[in-house]
Amino acid sequence: MFERYEQLARQLGVEHPVLLAPMDLVAGGRLAAAVTRAGGFGMIGGGYGNEAWLREQFAAAQGARVGVGFITWSLSRQPHLIDVCLEHEPAAIMFSFGDASEHIAKTKKAGILTICQVQTAAMAREAVDYGADIIVAQGAEAGGHGIACGTISLVPATVDAVGDKVPVVAAGGIADGRGFAAALALGAAGIAMGTRFYASEEALGDDDAKRRIVACRGGEETLRGILFDMARNNVWPSPYSGRVLRNAFSDKWYGRERELLQQLHVEQPRYQEARANHRYDTAAVIAGESAGLIHEVLPAKTIVMNVVEEMRDILGYSSSKVSKPSTQRHEA
Amino acid sequence: MFERYEQLARQLGVEHPVLLAPMDLVAGGRLAAAVTRAGGFGMIGGGYGNEAWLREQFAAAQGARVGVGFITWSLSRQPHLIDVCLEHEPAAIMFSFGDASEHIAKTKKAGILTICQVQTAAMAREAVDYGADIIVAQGAEAGGHGIACGTISLVPATVDAVGDKVPVVAAGGIADGRGFAAALALGAAGIAMGTRFYASEEALGDDDAKRRIVACRGGEETLRGILFDMARNNVWPSPYSGRVLRNAFSDKWYGRERELLQQLHVEQPRYQEARANHRYDTAAVIAGESAGLIHEVLPAKTIVMNVVEEMRDILGYSSSKVSKPSTQRHEA
Ligand SMILES: Cc1cc2nc3c(=O)[nH]c(=O)nc-3n(C[C@H](O)[C@H](O)[C@H](O)COP(=O)(O)O)c2cc1C
Ligand SMILES: Cc1cc2nc3c(=O)[nH]c(=O)nc-3n(C[C@H](O)[C@H](O)[C@H](O)COP(=O)(O)O)c2cc1C
Repeated sequence: MFERYEQLARQLGVEHPVLLAPMDLVAGGRLAAAVTRAGGFGMIGGGYGNEAWLREQFAAAQGARVGVGFITWSLSRQPHLIDVCLEHEPAAIMFSFGDASEHIAKTKKAGILTICQVQTAAMAREAVDYGADIIVAQGAEAGGHGIACGTISLVPATVDAVGDKVPVVAAGGIADGRGFAAALALGAAGIAMGTRFYASEEALGDDDAKRRIVACRGGEETLRGILFDMARNNVWPSPYSGRVLRNAFSDKWYGRERELLQQLHVEQPRYQEARANHRYDTAAVIAGESAGLIHEVLPAKTIVMNVVEEMRDILGYSSSKVSKPSTQRHEA
Repeated sequence: MFERYEQLARQLGVEHPVLLAPMDLVAGGRLAAAVTRAGGFGMIGGGYGNEAWLREQFAAAQGARVGVGFITWSLSRQPHLIDVCLEHEPAAIMFSFGDASEHIAKTKKAGILTICQVQTAAMAREAVDYGADIIVAQGAEAGGHGIACGTISLVPATVDAVGDKVPVVAAGGIADGRGFAAALALGAAGIAMGTRFYASEEALGDDDAKRRIVACRGGEETLRGILFDMARNNVWPSPYSGRVLRNAFSDKWYGRERELLQQLHVEQPRYQEARANHRYDTAAVIAGESAGLIHEVLPAKTIVMNVVEEMRDILGYSSSKVSKPSTQRHEA
């Protein structure tokens, strides 16, 4: 079990294969750098792709060794953003949601570690065929967009499909060392966490959004759907839907998406206004089922240390022979 | 981790805390007895409740130490079935789906081990308040009816809620020793499996249904919904929906439930006919996401042995000091 773990750690050039999920607008350079400095693997949330924001966040990372991730179908509208990233020598580029073959060809040619996030074992096979070096298997519990399969079956199925070729990282529903240990037992080599790092001091998210993640009592207070994407005029290609915290807006509209469609001329401007004013009774807080396991906003470093220590306690893993690699890119 | 495990094994009076989920019409007395004889905990699938069938299955168990489980909201229409069970001195009675308080009062009074299957941590708290001795936390990956939270977050959340009072058993998406090991890492004391035991030699299900479970390549070939319940005229109370293997019928109707409602006069008789003739392009095979991990119909004994051995390999658990208890009720 720990052979895979240590191999992935070496491949990423970190001490702990604990990945910061590249959350759009939430995983900025400061958070990514903090995760890397704590011994994990920080990634900037390139998201839909915004060149100015991207440059700002690479600057905010202050030379820390970080990766960057994109929403593939959106990146495909402005593929030059990969070149912008390459200028900053990212430690890895991650692609999620959609056919990444053309982008992978580019990152591989540039010699950049290439990570693909997938939602089924079949998608993992495809990504590995295109050249992915690492697969993130994202279960339906995950915050943000995804598809339908739960982590506990998806991870072993993905390991069976591609585990002999590349390491598999588990994502979705993991917020503490128990989830980390479970992921390793399922055959994963490491984990990626989004929601847990959203509720960190360094995340770019709003304080009230973080408080709502802390207040969430369990997965049943989240939902997966498309109504928030409708309200913010950002409907994704099928079959993706997004998981968010339930709120008054979703309690009103969930299951009534057709009606909402007819009311968009009224609801979209209202929604925009709520977003602009951080009113989360209407605007969605993007978060996953693991929110129920999160009870405190913490520094990213504490989050990394806690999950690693708790996982080690559970699995009886004593500190390995892997020497601690540098966390500064330019020292390498 | 193994303290909880061994405690639950003792409480159940078995060697391995591996529970056969009480699957309606699939988990008959023969399968339940086979699981118990293999060192696990067999349970007859009392399901909606059918007295004649129940008596037959207790007879088929031939005195093996087995429990029995019911769909609570349905059992409440004929609560005397509990008395029928008590005649057979079941090793436990399990309740799932709905308010079980009145039934729990009865089983507790009779001194019968009482298990409750729940889908949220809040429901677990309620069940423990009513007197449940053991909680099964059922994730959304599960075959059959359930709600929405994935196993990997639900189990630790349930352990945090009630784990200091009663053992928590993980269910949903588990089909091999990796899932078993993951469940223990999450804080569970044992596991319950349905889909995996459906694809056993002893299960009452049809051979073609079992073959379809074996052929299923992953969670994306299952779906959770209500359309099969509509087609078989057995719509459950909200918020329950059921997970089944996708087939031609669901590919046609999924997402078009309103239309289906208008066509029920045509579709219900067709569906009944397909069920009667075991035509699974129309009739649903009830199964969960773990179907993607199942590659063979096996004897129940092999299933129990495999998950236990694989779990031990992963977690480095060597055979414990727990002495092997009797598997015959009347020897006790
Ligand atoms: C606020 C938020 C924003 C996200 N944005 C993205 C994104 O832009 N690109 C992406 O690949 N994944 C995104 N995700 C999904 C993550 O990559 C990851 O799959 C998920 O967070 C893992 O599940 P968890 O939230 O339970 O840890 C986002 C998740 C959250 C919570
Ligand atoms: C064919 C089938 C029938 C089921 N029937 C019942 C039932 O009658 N009562 C019940 O409590 N659960 C029932 N379940 C759900 C199980 O109790 C259990 O939660 C589930 O099987 C666990 O997930 P798994 O299928 O991934 O192992 C059924 C499951 C299956 C697959």
